[in-house]
Amino acid sequence: MPHTVAQKLLAAHLVEGELEPGAEIGLQVDQTLTQDATGTMVMLELEAMGLDRVRTELSVQYVDHNLLQTDEKNPDDHLFLRSAAQRFGLWFSQAGNGVSHPVHQAHFGRPGALLIGSDSHTCAAGALGMLAIGVGGLEIAMAMAGQPLYVTVPEIWGVELTGELPDWVSAKDVVLEMLRRHGVSGGVGRIIEYHGEGLAQLSAMDRHVIANMGAELGATATVFPADDAARRYLESVGRAEQFERWEADDGARYDLAEQIDLSQLEPLIARPSSPGNVVPVAEAAGEEVSQVVIGSSANPGLRDAAVVAEILAGRRAVAGVSVDINPSSREVLADLITGGWLTSLVGAGARIHQSGCMGCIGMGQAPATGRNSLRTMPRNFPGRSGTEEDAVWLCSPETAAASALTGVITDPRTLEDSHGLACPRPVLPEFAARLSDMLEPPLAPEEAAAVELVKGPNISTLPEFTPIEDSLQVPALLVMGDDVSTDEIMPAGSRVLPFRSNIPRIAEFSFTRIDESYPERAREAASGHVVIAGKNYGQGSSREHAVIAPRHLGLRAVIAESFARIHWQNLANFGILALQFDDPADRDGIETDDEVVLEGLHEALRAGSSLTARIGGREVALHHTLSPRQVDMVLAGGRIPLTAQQV
Amino acid sequence: MPHTVAQKLLAAHLVEGELEPGAEIGLQVDQTLTQDATGTMVMLELEAMGLDRVRTELSVQYVDHNLLQTDEKNPDDHLFLRSAAQRFGLWFSQAGNGVSHPVHQAHFGRPGALLIGSDSHTCAAGALGMLAIGVGGLEIAMAMAGQPLYVTVPEIWGVELTGELPDWVSAKDVVLEMLRRHGVSGGVGRIIEYHGEGLAQLSAMDRHVIANMGAELGATATVFPADDAARRYLESVGRAEQFERWEADDGARYDLAEQIDLSQLEPLIARPSSPGNVVPVAEAAGEEVSQVVIGSSANPGLRDAAVVAEILAGRRAVAGVSVDINPSSREVLADLITGGWLTSLVGAGARIHQSGCMGCIGMGQAPATGRNSLRTMPRNFPGRSGTEEDAVWLCSPETAAASALTGVITDPRTLEDSHGLACPRPVLPEFAARLSDMLEPPLAPEEAAAVELVKGPNISTLPEFTPIEDSLQVPALLVMGDDVSTDEIMPAGSRVLPFRSNIPRIAEFSFTRIDESYPERAREAASGHVVIAGKNYGQGSSREHAVIAPRHLGLRAVIAESFARIHWQNLANFGILALQFDDPADRDGIETDDEVVLEGLHEALRAGSSLTARIGGREVALHHTLSPRQVDMVLAGGRIPLTAQQV
Repeated sequence: MPHTVAQKLLAAHLVEGELEPGAEIGLQVDQTLTQDATGTMVMLELEAMGLDRVRTELSVQYVDHNLLQTDEKNPDDHLFLRSAAQRFGLWFSQAGNGVSHPVHQAHFGRPGALLIGSDSHTCAAGALGMLAIGVGGLEIAMAMAGQPLYVTVPEIWGVELTGELPDWVSAKDVVLEMLRRHGVSGGVGRIIEYHGEGLAQLSAMDRHVIANMGAELGATATVFPADDAARRYLESVGRAEQFERWEADDGARYDLAEQIDLSQLEPLIARPSSPGNVVPVAEAAGEEVSQVVIGSSANPGLRDAAVVAEILAGRRAVAGVSVDINPSSREVLADLITGGWLTSLVGAGARIHQSGCMGCIGMGQAPATGRNSLRTMPRNFPGRSGTEEDAVWLCSPETAAASALTGVITDPRTLEDSHGLACPRPVLPEFAARLSDMLEPPLAPEEAAAVELVKGPNISTLPEFTPIEDSLQVPALLVMGDDVSTDEIMPAGSRVLPFRSNIPRIAEFSFTRIDESYPERAREAASGHVVIAGKNYGQGSSREHAVIAPRHLGLRAVIAESFARIHWQNLANFGILALQFDDPADRDGIETDDEVVLEGLHEALRAGSSLTARIGGREVALHHTLSPRQVDMVLAGGRIPLTAQQV
Repeated sequence: MPHTVAQKLLAAHLVEGELEPGAEIGLQVDQTLTQDATGTMVMLELEAMGLDRVRTELSVQYVDHNLLQTDEKNPDDHLFLRSAAQRFGLWFSQAGNGVSHPVHQAHFGRPGALLIGSDSHTCAAGALGMLAIGVGGLEIAMAMAGQPLYVTVPEIWGVELTGELPDWVSAKDVVLEMLRRHGVSGGVGRIIEYHGEGLAQLSAMDRHVIANMGAELGATATVFPADDAARRYLESVGRAEQFERWEADDGARYDLAEQIDLSQLEPLIARPSSPGNVVPVAEAAGEEVSQVVIGSSANPGLRDAAVVAEILAGRRAVAGVSVDINPSSREVLADLITGGWLTSLVGAGARIHQSGCMGCIGMGQAPATGRNSLRTMPRNFPGRSGTEEDAVWLCSPETAAASALTGVITDPRTLEDSHGLACPRPVLPEFAARLSDMLEPPLAPEEAAAVELVKGPNISTLPEFTPIEDSLQVPALLVMGDDVSTDEIMPAGSRVLPFRSNIPRIAEFSFTRIDESYPERAREAASGHVVIAGKNYGQGSSREHAVIAPRHLGLRAVIAESFARIHWQNLANFGILALQFDDPADRDGIETDDEVVLEGLHEALRAGSSLTARIGGREVALHHTLSPRQVDMVLAGGRIPLTAQQV
């Protein structure tokens, strides 16, 4: 039977289950990627599991997010991550080396590999014919320990590209077209696989742009074939020997089919404040611009910065417009220098920033209140820039550069008339700069074993979590309604995030948006507590702190009408029992501080899915939907202690 | 009579008083420099005075301090400053254009001119035979309004340089030698004037390094002659026509005399945490280094970065050491690219940051807890880096680069043996890059008049201050001891500084280190209040917020045993009456909230220096030391309303 690339990639890594859409399968993981914002927790999880050395083909710890060192916390984290990478046998990419995704593709991308990363844009690596999936931190830690990745088999969404991109239209416009058509949840439960004759025109880095923003469509992954474009790319980075051809078979069938005629595309832009608000640039033209930012994982290629340089060369950005350039890596910066492009950018008035994510994750570059900021980045959620009342637009490098030249949102096609400019076609070097010295290889096992973790004062050990008790007699500290999000359970933001490596400290923010007294009351309830909720409990971000922190404060069980999928997994991963009301009406009578009694829990969990609790003196029928594997986790105190037993 | 350069500069600008050491004189100001951290208040002062247009030869507003835009406050300030520069007829240097001092010297430095700046390192411009003095913001605003600068005539301290610097020893080591000999208050009340045959070897940018850190010696100014080095410099920046020779006459006499034999110097380093803790690098050699930062106003020249590049060229910084490069301006960055130096730095593993002050004023680049950070910067006060327990060392670019190569503090002279390196002598281009497009000239008067100030939500108007009442019957809200510093009156730091453009908001921090209830009690005392203090009230930083903020909350008078000089001036500038006890013992009986009654104040202030108050029912004899000019200020409500009347 003919297969698509995605089907082949799934089959090649299948170690458990059947490849039927909707079924749970286990996949063997080849590579992992962690960045500094999520990596510290992963490293603390490895420590807690007692893992001696990662069991993947390779695992890389990057430092690209928290580069603004306004106090000791970020540099202390960088030292901690380096020591952990040394201790556990990871590669380590130093601060300033670059954004994880393009650096990973350049140094480690390999057709046919399965990469998972604790960063939602890990999917960018699909550009090279890899299966690349963004997941939560503990999934990474487990893969490092040699366990499979468990996922629900996605549908394969074939997107056929035909025709050729017109002048001034580039890869970013292709994925913006997908977002224009399908919005920010159009890809949920799907792998997007691009195919067709239109691919021939797209380089591996063009494909990286498109694959990256598959995350904005909500897709599980984006897959491109490993064809001549992948081969040329691997040659350019000096790793031709790692090329393997992965292409769809003739007659392969996609679960869903879509077509984009590239020749019909025009420059597109996402209005504030969602990547899904896409309109033609022409419709927004003329709006005043106060900032233009080039860079991030969404347009990280040398080409993306060089195009901007060629548009601005010998010209000047409009005075008063801040033009911020974030070279995605030291290697891209080196090539920008060699090609003369950096001189053009500096001459045009640009601010050249260190290599990293920078403004894309709110690390500097916040725009002025209410002023339009055009960015080549993947996301423009409200306030993500750091400015409460921001107005961030997402567009291609061509559109960003054109707008920097004019001071207003500008369709780059108009530059031909207004500035006599031909569509820039930068000639890239045959071989990219290779600066691998700040990418430290894993230590040899005997050296690694001797490394001590370097923990600054803000870095704590992951608390030990004990197995759930056989009987609970604890108060219901919170009685909540529907749709409680992980932002309410554990807020993010610059006030909270610096404590990401310190569970006892970050725990003090748990549930405080709902009830400020929660942390104190939780500490007072010495034998533990439960919380009560309505439907869709734990929606939103996948952040693990939203279970680890309340768990640290004594949360034993959540009793709700229903759960959001990832949070429900996270609860099991960290040994918190997720229970559901048989009759949703039972929630209504529960009052804050009502006593909850659960007895004979261990046997009940092993025996089946039904339990009975006494809440506020009433008998309440409950059930759970945990798999036997998850029951084992909860009985062990979570996936970490369970794995520690197995390791 | 033969004169020194400093004497000639003072005489050329004298408009009031006599040139006798210790006397107060008025000097005509040619140029002003403001940066963004202090400039917003200066612009609000101009607005409050109703000034239409600056009356200086030229005034320049730079944006170089608050470049880390983590929320809207900094970019909003940048827009405000640009609009104010346009409105009041200033030049404006955009964010990312560079550090004020080297940019000012390159574009506006002129032998013989008097420059004042609201930045303590303004003194760097003395390198070109200018008189350049760092002062408080209101002094700048007054100079912009055409008023003289009032200063006490300093002593002239002649430092004769003989001999030639050995290999691996550079300008930074010269000023570190001055700090080694004299400490951080060695220059107080003095102008340092360098002379002698040793000068011939020092370029204008070398002299800039030495003049800059005159601030660390506490000197009023540092002066170099305008000789062939200044001429060559002005030629290199395309302004040969602005050269004028300013040299000391044969036989000129200095008030104090000192000699440095350059040939006897060796590489020096200031240990944590004072620029005065200077020792030979050899004494500190071998200590582990975790960060090396190149840049800042103290080593801003192309040479300073190029030396580092030549030492690192083809080599690698030790893995784990963060090497941070802050090009001092876009022009220096452009020349670093052209000369191939940037490629060497990137290849060696450096992080290249945007042009500006950056880590020097704690804007990013904080080091890890307790880890040694070597910097080419001027200051290493504890915690200034952003890290509470920091360990910052100050050294030359040669020493910093050598230590980056080895990972430990390294005397650069040892590189000859250890690395086979000859002392680097970078060949600088005959003409420096000139990128003046982001340096916007003043608008024409009619255009300027039409400009509206752009105020983000955090930028308030300077409150209006009313004249002091003829009689006061108000409570003494605080009774304090000796040596209260401006840090206690108005703290700095990242929690407070973002509100620097917002007096009502920053006022809420007034005196809170002494008494948290002060702001609230001050607001309750609707008809005003006084505070009581001991000796040396208002010591420390010159910050104006320490008088403006309590003034906004109703502070009418401070009654103390004695005052620190700058704060005492600031009190008069903002219309707060500074009174002293005739008998210090009178302070002892005063209790918090005692009623203070002062009657017939206007006549008493005009008539002489004695007053009588009734405090807590007792008669207390007081006096003041205000000049008639200062009495006029207090009676007008401060220097701003007084000037507004005169303008």
